[in-house]
Amino acid sequence: MAKGNDQYVQNITPQSEDFSRWYIDVIQKADLMDYAPVRGCIVFKPDGYELWEACQRELDRRFKETGHRNAYFPLFIPESFFEKEKEHVEGFNPELPWVTEAGGEKLEERLAVRPTSETVIGHMYARWIQSYRDLPVKINQWANVVRWEKRTLPFLRTSEFLWQEGHTAHATAEEAESETRMILDLYTDFVEGVLAIPVYRGQKTPSEKFAGAVHTYSIEAMMKDGKALQAGTSHYMGQNFAKGFDIQYLDRDNTLKHVFTTSWGVSTRILGAIIMVHGDDRGLALPPLIAPKQVVIIPIGPKKERDRVVAHAAALHQQLADRNIRVTMDDREDLSPGWKFNEYEMRGIPVRLEIGPRDMEKGQVVLVRRDTGEKLFVPEGELTERLPRLLEEIQHNMFDKAKKFRDDHSHVAHSMEELTHIVRDQKGFALAGWCGDEVCEKAVKEQAGATSRNIPFDPPETLSTCVSCGKSAAHSVWFAKAY
Amino acid sequence: MAKGNDQYVQNITPQSEDFSRWYIDVIQKADLMDYAPVRGCIVFKPDGYELWEACQRELDRRFKETGHRNAYFPLFIPESFFEKEKEHVEGFNPELPWVTEAGGEKLEERLAVRPTSETVIGHMYARWIQSYRDLPVKINQWANVVRWEKRTLPFLRTSEFLWQEGHTAHATAEEAESETRMILDLYTDFVEGVLAIPVYRGQKTPSEKFAGAVHTYSIEAMMKDGKALQAGTSHYMGQNFAKGFDIQYLDRDNTLKHVFTTSWGVSTRILGAIIMVHGDDRGLALPPLIAPKQVVIIPIGPKKERDRVVAHAAALHQQLADRNIRVTMDDREDLSPGWKFNEYEMRGIPVRLEIGPRDMEKGQVVLVRRDTGEKLFVPEGELTERLPRLLEEIQHNMFDKAKKFRDDHSHVAHSMEELTHIVRDQKGFALAGWCGDEVCEKAVKEQAGATSRNIPFDPPETLSTCVSCGKSAAHSVWFAKAY
Ligand SMILES: [Zn+2]
Ligand SMILES: [Zn+2]
Repeated sequence: MAKGNDQYVQNITPQSEDFSRWYIDVIQKADLMDYAPVRGCIVFKPDGYELWEACQRELDRRFKETGHRNAYFPLFIPESFFEKEKEHVEGFNPELPWVTEAGGEKLEERLAVRPTSETVIGHMYARWIQSYRDLPVKINQWANVVRWEKRTLPFLRTSEFLWQEGHTAHATAEEAESETRMILDLYTDFVEGVLAIPVYRGQKTPSEKFAGAVHTYSIEAMMKDGKALQAGTSHYMGQNFAKGFDIQYLDRDNTLKHVFTTSWGVSTRILGAIIMVHGDDRGLALPPLIAPKQVVIIPIGPKKERDRVVAHAAALHQQLADRNIRVTMDDREDLSPGWKFNEYEMRGIPVRLEIGPRDMEKGQVVLVRRDTGEKLFVPEGELTERLPRLLEEIQHNMFDKAKKFRDDHSHVAHSMEELTHIVRDQKGFALAGWCGDEVCEKAVKEQAGATSRNIPFDPPETLSTCVSCGKSAAHSVWFAKAY
Repeated sequence: MAKGNDQYVQNITPQSEDFSRWYIDVIQKADLMDYAPVRGCIVFKPDGYELWEACQRELDRRFKETGHRNAYFPLFIPESFFEKEKEHVEGFNPELPWVTEAGGEKLEERLAVRPTSETVIGHMYARWIQSYRDLPVKINQWANVVRWEKRTLPFLRTSEFLWQEGHTAHATAEEAESETRMILDLYTDFVEGVLAIPVYRGQKTPSEKFAGAVHTYSIEAMMKDGKALQAGTSHYMGQNFAKGFDIQYLDRDNTLKHVFTTSWGVSTRILGAIIMVHGDDRGLALPPLIAPKQVVIIPIGPKKERDRVVAHAAALHQQLADRNIRVTMDDREDLSPGWKFNEYEMRGIPVRLEIGPRDMEKGQVVLVRRDTGEKLFVPEGELTERLPRLLEEIQHNMFDKAKKFRDDHSHVAHSMEELTHIVRDQKGFALAGWCGDEVCEKAVKEQAGATSRNIPFDPPETLSTCVSCGKSAAHSVWFAKAY
């Protein structure tokens, strides 16, 4: 068993050796995706898509609980729509795929395949919103979007990806701003509470905000290679799109006013974050709250005892399923227990339950934690009570571990030299003072290879001088290399 | 109240006057959709999308229970893929939109926006399937697809629509064929059991089958104007796609064999069927099992009693929600009860619950059925027990009513004259004998304006002569005008 074990792990490149290679090894071995025959596109295989479905369920419930409803807008957007918001067209034009022919004819106006839906939704909102009575409008869309990326990486940056995009319209700036912040809280609750990924919450610098937004909030997570991944964004648009698309309402005072809009999104790149925050040299590790399967039961023992053990394991399976624990069983005869142990560790199932003839005699089962490798001998009578507690404990432990890693790799930089050292050698995030000038932000990028992640709401320290020019700092900013 | 009532109904064109106009009136008034700024595309507004979400939940559960898993394949399909299955390319080429430019450059190979995913899935299956151990593969995809239609109609025929497409691969023809039939049963169970729409089950004639299939099964529903709507299809592909895309497996006997594939789909056109089978001159009527809201509570009474009544209604609301009844309440002050009655009848909510001060004194509530208009006075103590039974009764009654309508409008045609009379004047389905020659099928189309719907598994009668040429009939076929 030990041999098969080691052999298996050898098939995954160690993180310390080559993190990018490790990532690709894991997602392919865990059967999450495959490359599609279209440049920069991937296929979400069942195990990968199931993880996205789990994310969808969690997010969708939260959207609905906070008064949002789902709708669906068209995939194609007429070229002229992009001209209506200047920054927006500049931001997205280079990445657009264009439909120029359809139904055997050349189209009069080119149609973009949506990179995001602000424009077409703005057009519809202008039709739907007439009076203050129509406000607020709070709609979310689950959809595929396309951005023709030059360099792609499975889940993290693909030409086509899946996401949700929320679009709301409000009577006042305050209400729109408050929606933007509420959604950032909702995302935080999901990413920290369900995915066990700690995030830095803050505001994007002007150069990093969404094309067309007044400002953008983001949650930023740290991967195990010290790089940042933007896990969710929430944009306050002010009246930019309302003016571009003429979204006006007749207010109580009988005057026409432009609405204030927001948009916000989480995409399938979040799958990359789950993998790169929790995964290790043995493969995936899934937090119990998001794991499609939380427990895998593996019956063990000599051939002659097999039927008895499997029947017993099946009864345990039923017992756990009845308690709404997401459980699966692998009783295949032609595969060794050792192979199965490795397989399900690699697939990241939080708990393995082993049961054999000797355990049955003792009236116990063996539980093995994916997060710590710890082995627990649990009396069968206590199983349905212990297991939910154990899953909760694993959930918290995975968050704590990820937070410790992130905190250990987050440092304050008082100079460009320190910043470079933190980002390049220590492989982490650097908090640094920034005067607010885009030139200094660019200088950090050129010298340290790091981009500004966000201006945190609660910086661990407030810095007084700009890390680049030495002038007075307007903000303390997280800088990091980023996916 | 009676006045507001009549006034409201006047806004919907009666079905008897102009069925098409009625349909558009209803879907717009019930706020299910709006026209998009792209030719032939619509926006699924929240109430329309919610109905699709309800369909998705019901279907998705059934797919998973029968061993299917969801995945996601790319939106774009390289042009060369379409050449690999001859019938398929001929069937879909005229309807394809083409992406010819992306990321600022002209593409070397044009990319079609998927009209269906057999080709790209065939390509992936060829990579994934190597051994008999890899079979069967049973995958479903929820996706948007595009077919550039010349004449469009909301939900029923739009250039972009939403659907699920199942794609399976099997070792034997028998297994694939049995999958195709099992899915048709699953669709029947959903459409008849949940949507309360009776269907004729059968096989498509060769000229009406899916482009590339060996044969296609369908379920056909009758709309209230006597026209047919294909509510779901299940295709047996034989080895056509396996050969086109080289999907081979090494069998137990150590020889390479092509797999047998199937595909099957239900799309958002099913929403059109729900509307056109159950709707009436008052608007939508939703079967309880699919209705996003099953009961609407409307508190009634003079202003001074308002608070007391609303508080009581809110308690009832909670009571019903606790029993998993999908309930909503409208306690808006500025709208009259009469307006609300019409509004929710128009939106098709199966049961209205009225409660006023006098009802409270009597310890009763008033229930009004959407399907029959019947008023029931129910003691409050019996409500949580009576209501689920009532919803069940409404569900069955709606199916029975639809079935009676369909049966009353289904007739046997022994001659082309009879067939034409049935389809044109009686506005219904005609069962007729058919020799199997495409020429005769075309003759029916030209003379009666009807297409063959399917060759039913259990025809109510077996006809011996072809309705067109008078030769011996090979099949009894349902003919009808169709959406
Ligand atoms: Zn500076
Ligand atoms: Zn004939």
